[in-house]
Amino acid sequence: MIKVAVVGCGYWGPNLIRNFCSVPQCVMSMACDTKPDRLEYIQRLYPSVAVTSDFQDIINNDDIDAVAIATPVAMHFPMAQQCLQRGKHVLLEKPITASVKECQELIRLAVKHGRTLMVDHTFEYTAAVNKIKEIIQSGELGQIYYIDCVRVNLGLFQNDINVVWDLAPHDVSIVLYLLDQQPESISGQGKAHLKPGIEDVAALALNFPDNLGVYIQSSWLHPNKIRKITIVGSKKMLVYDDVDPLEKIKIYDKGVEVPAHYETFGDFHFSYRYGDIYSPRLEETEPLKKVCQHFIECIGNGTQPRTNGISGLRVVSVLESANISLKNGGSPIAIDWNRVTPEEISAKDSI
Amino acid sequence: MIKVAVVGCGYWGPNLIRNFCSVPQCVMSMACDTKPDRLEYIQRLYPSVAVTSDFQDIINNDDIDAVAIATPVAMHFPMAQQCLQRGKHVLLEKPITASVKECQELIRLAVKHGRTLMVDHTFEYTAAVNKIKEIIQSGELGQIYYIDCVRVNLGLFQNDINVVWDLAPHDVSIVLYLLDQQPESISGQGKAHLKPGIEDVAALALNFPDNLGVYIQSSWLHPNKIRKITIVGSKKMLVYDDVDPLEKIKIYDKGVEVPAHYETFGDFHFSYRYGDIYSPRLEETEPLKKVCQHFIECIGNGTQPRTNGISGLRVVSVLESANISLKNGGSPIAIDWNRVTPEEISAKDSI
Amino acid sequence: MIKVAVVGCGYWGPNLIRNFCSVPQCVMSMACDTKPDRLEYIQRLYPSVAVTSDFQDIINNDDIDAVAIATPVAMHFPMAQQCLQRGKHVLLEKPITASVKECQELIRLAVKHGRTLMVDHTFEYTAAVNKIKEIIQSGELGQIYYIDCVRVNLGLFQNDINVVWDLAPHDVSIVLYLLDQQPESISGQGKAHLKPGIEDVAALALNFPDNLGVYIQSSWLHPNKIRKITIVGSKKMLVYDDVDPLEKIKIYDKGVEVPAHYETFGDFHFSYRYGDIYSPRLEETEPLKKVCQHFIECIGNGTQPRTNGISGLRVVSVLESANISLKNGGSPIAIDWNRVTPEEISAKDSI
Amino acid sequence: MIKVAVVGCGYWGPNLIRNFCSVPQCVMSMACDTKPDRLEYIQRLYPSVAVTSDFQDIINNDDIDAVAIATPVAMHFPMAQQCLQRGKHVLLEKPITASVKECQELIRLAVKHGRTLMVDHTFEYTAAVNKIKEIIQSGELGQIYYIDCVRVNLGLFQNDINVVWDLAPHDVSIVLYLLDQQPESISGQGKAHLKPGIEDVAALALNFPDNLGVYIQSSWLHPNKIRKITIVGSKKMLVYDDVDPLEKIKIYDKGVEVPAHYETFGDFHFSYRYGDIYSPRLEETEPLKKVCQHFIECIGNGTQPRTNGISGLRVVSVLESANISLKNGGSPIAIDWNRVTPEEISAKDSI
Repeated sequence: MIKVAVVGCGYWGPNLIRNFCSVPQCVMSMACDTKPDRLEYIQRLYPSVAVTSDFQDIINNDDIDAVAIATPVAMHFPMAQQCLQRGKHVLLEKPITASVKECQELIRLAVKHGRTLMVDHTFEYTAAVNKIKEIIQSGELGQIYYIDCVRVNLGLFQNDINVVWDLAPHDVSIVLYLLDQQPESISGQGKAHLKPGIEDVAALALNFPDNLGVYIQSSWLHPNKIRKITIVGSKKMLVYDDVDPLEKIKIYDKGVEVPAHYETFGDFHFSYRYGDIYSPRLEETEPLKKVCQHFIECIGNGTQPRTNGISGLRVVSVLESANISLKNGGSPIAIDWNRVTPEEISAKDSI
Repeated sequence: MIKVAVVGCGYWGPNLIRNFCSVPQCVMSMACDTKPDRLEYIQRLYPSVAVTSDFQDIINNDDIDAVAIATPVAMHFPMAQQCLQRGKHVLLEKPITASVKECQELIRLAVKHGRTLMVDHTFEYTAAVNKIKEIIQSGELGQIYYIDCVRVNLGLFQNDINVVWDLAPHDVSIVLYLLDQQPESISGQGKAHLKPGIEDVAALALNFPDNLGVYIQSSWLHPNKIRKITIVGSKKMLVYDDVDPLEKIKIYDKGVEVPAHYETFGDFHFSYRYGDIYSPRLEETEPLKKVCQHFIECIGNGTQPRTNGISGLRVVSVLESANISLKNGGSPIAIDWNRVTPEEISAKDSI
Repeated sequence: MIKVAVVGCGYWGPNLIRNFCSVPQCVMSMACDTKPDRLEYIQRLYPSVAVTSDFQDIINNDDIDAVAIATPVAMHFPMAQQCLQRGKHVLLEKPITASVKECQELIRLAVKHGRTLMVDHTFEYTAAVNKIKEIIQSGELGQIYYIDCVRVNLGLFQNDINVVWDLAPHDVSIVLYLLDQQPESISGQGKAHLKPGIEDVAALALNFPDNLGVYIQSSWLHPNKIRKITIVGSKKMLVYDDVDPLEKIKIYDKGVEVPAHYETFGDFHFSYRYGDIYSPRLEETEPLKKVCQHFIECIGNGTQPRTNGISGLRVVSVLESANISLKNGGSPIAIDWNRVTPEEISAKDSI
Repeated sequence: MIKVAVVGCGYWGPNLIRNFCSVPQCVMSMACDTKPDRLEYIQRLYPSVAVTSDFQDIINNDDIDAVAIATPVAMHFPMAQQCLQRGKHVLLEKPITASVKECQELIRLAVKHGRTLMVDHTFEYTAAVNKIKEIIQSGELGQIYYIDCVRVNLGLFQNDINVVWDLAPHDVSIVLYLLDQQPESISGQGKAHLKPGIEDVAALALNFPDNLGVYIQSSWLHPNKIRKITIVGSKKMLVYDDVDPLEKIKIYDKGVEVPAHYETFGDFHFSYRYGDIYSPRLEETEPLKKVCQHFIECIGNGTQPRTNGISGLRVVSVLESANISLKNGGSPIAIDWNRVTPEEISAKDSI
């Protein structure tokens, strides 16, 4: 029986605890937070879970096999490093680390110690995103022209990271998962309106191969809660509205017919195609439950998680480049993926 | 009685004709288009309007006092130039010209010949935009942090200009009018998916003084028709949804309270304020009717139109810079407004 | 060439004139209204149409072959009667007459004089309603359990008829057309809040064979404009929202599985089926154009219109019974369809 | 410390348990259900709550001061009767009983034994309904013309009661609370499509004094979940949409100006007033928590609950009459409120 500890019992941690409690192949053993009231809260809800305010109690406890870390991003690396060095499997909240370098090091440690390293890219486990991936792969949308992501609301502000590191990881992980491709270059625009140096509004543009563009808007300062991803293909268009309880995905049989040949400028005419709209039913399972189950299964089987260290690295690479562009006024930054994911890492990690 | 001719009877021209017909201080006299079927159409609807396929018939007709030009943008300059040189007043569709240089020349000609030069920035004449300007000026929203503009739909594609020159002029003219300020720098991202060289999707970022950001998304390739402008201020937030027939403007009494003093990093906490939502009733008058009336009045009184050559120049300056950035991969372009609007132009034009 | 006159140039008449102008097989010849300003308005828009304030000018003009009547309902019968007696074909706005008796008499006259009698049940000519009829007939919805119709808004109040006679005719004609059945009994509730005796709010319940119920809500006093028809079948459910520009029809693959056998009370359990949602694309043609074309075609061919006198009679029968119930506090009224549509009428009319 | 037992741990019972757990002045002591799996579920979540499958364990336990009953309606009366006779305070789910007679008997027992009798009309404790009551009482809406209530969705079907007894109690209790008046007569229409004798769709019409009408639609067979109450007044109109998370209440400054005097029929003209729309912010507290707190406070203070036996009786009286009308085809039923609430009951109960 795999014994699990959860570190960080603020906003997301209790959800991890609740879900690990429901996975039969593991025991939710220990919870850690620096704030006594959070530990009391956990104690009251889960009397059988041991609590501690000292992270070393988890590190030094050899009974703990796996640790899920839901602390501020800056602490992801030092905590995960210690866990892996002590032979514990690690699940990290998104983004996996605060830098590419940190993530590369965690991947190396996971390979070295033969432990599972996983990142909680929750949306990659939702019914909606998997349905969309299926639709894209079936060719129904045709060639993807561009993807537009909007993730805005009022708050929750973070003190240590800007809105790009807070909200955009969701969109980046979804897009990389859907496209199975990596952007060649990235530019970012953003401004800090409330706290100097912490951008609360940002707009990213990612350039993928084959002229595919991805646009990501993130804001902590918006009157409406919007979580919308629009995918425009040569055949059909798809809108994924995560806030809509009933029609999360809508597929529009809309498109533009490009004439095969045209000779003179004046001859060039597109014709628009309007068609049916279709909204597939989605099963409603909590995606975090699937994340926790998958983590425990990968530990048990020794298999690579779908959202492993490399997956986390890719997202962090995009965020890091976006952030550099943003801090420099928006000039695009090219990403050298060979440098980001050296041969030896990806090879070993994928074993 | 001012005699008016309309050039270009395609998409927008017939609306100009219809509205000039309803302005009592002018006579809608002549219409021009190169396509016979458009002239037939106009003839049938307005038997009293003379039609011609030759623009020179208008230039050479000394009875024509004023010309409204609704042709492709590339023809704005040569046509307006001839009109002004022959002493005719000119109303141009947006954008006023295809370049800053052309617009500067038209302004010079208008001043030299003492004729009215006006651009049809239609939205500056809507009840909604004027209500929003009133709200901003009253201070109700507090300091403006940022403005986000989305103007997307499927089609209508243009053959000669990209989506920035086609859709963004509306947002740029609205934003410049609302803020009464000019951006210091601009960056643009965009891609051409259907016709090489003609971007059909674009994202602009405009940097205004005092850290104010404006984001503009334009697309001819989108499943939904969206015309939405979100204005986030330090006190309240406003959403202007031009597609909503009933609640075009919504003011959210939402905001973030920034603590006055804070000493350590950890002390820093925002508090969110949620409040009432309010949608003011707007009068429904066709804004183009106001445009036509204002043009005729300015001619009669010899006064400067609200949307005069300088107004058109500002919008074109933004578009031109945005386009340069876009064609160069998105690096931001600074605008030197002194160079764009030399002293002698603005002085004379404002007389 | 069939020569058409339109009587009544208020709200709906000008739409009839505009559409008859576009039908090639007829000439829009004459328009009649008692108000001079309405005639001026028509004269200005359609210089070739003769106008008169005296209905007898139409009756006495033997060149006029067909008359479309868009006057207050009370005048439908006397005007149509004169037209038919003088051998003119007649198109009447809904409801065809103010009573069953009047309608029976018009049908008799039409048969006697061999003239076309048609009622403008516009919605029966819309793409949406015809698509729904097709869906119902295909069996896709299963057995129809009930239909719920909501048609409410603020105004337009009528001075002479209540909201049942004004708004419900649309729903009644749609429902009778969709179901191809007649209700066995009807009850109506309603109240007059603004003008004594003229109900401005009403709720009708129609009982059809096979336990099928139809509910109709009508109101001139409502903050929102709602035009919604919900059709619940044993297999699927359909919502027709005429105000939605994009997704007028939505088909929900939702339903309830009724267990085939059950023995004890406690065993009885339904299971709900949730499924995909689908919105078929509809062609956008102005239905009134189809009405006008169909009227002219029927005159030319001597064929019965789809919405002939019998169709108008059925709707008026329902309205009349609903109104009797409403005026009597809501007790249900049975309709004897044999009495309403005597054998000799329907036989002759369908020739 | 008041000791509470909850009977019925199906759909609503667990919510009662959870909320009683959070009320400091009481102890959530015991839970009862006939199904072992429901008791296990409760045991797991609340280890400190004793469970039993035998209701008599609660009756015979003299430590239990108060009993909340969330069983099928048919069992409300026999269970509450036993509780009151044994000196226990009683909170009943809506509707309070299956008949007027049963409710009258419970009121008598509560008075006789000096115990608190309360019904869980949850909506009377929501921020939305209380805000609406405040708005109505302020006169902002003017004279109330009519109220339209729609409460429909797919399922949950009940085996023992029809949709009138299941869904309409919410609307009836809200309306009686808002208006502080009782209907003079009631009519009901409805049909059973799935299970003979159990109507799954119904439409009620309630006639209040001063020509005020209330219309209630209830359905278990509808593709959308709608919970909407529209209140039309002589000055303003209000829509309460309980499904909208952000703008539950909207007040429309819309209305109709009725001319003060008019002489002839033709002179009579209304003018419509369109105006601003306003959505007040509502505090979000769980109303059931307020219900539980109020119940415990009333027990402690010996005061009458806001939703006491009389309140429950009024709702049941309406439902009973509606049901009689419905079973008889829809003829209206008058309610003699003097007979329903005899002097001696209301007098004693209000002490």
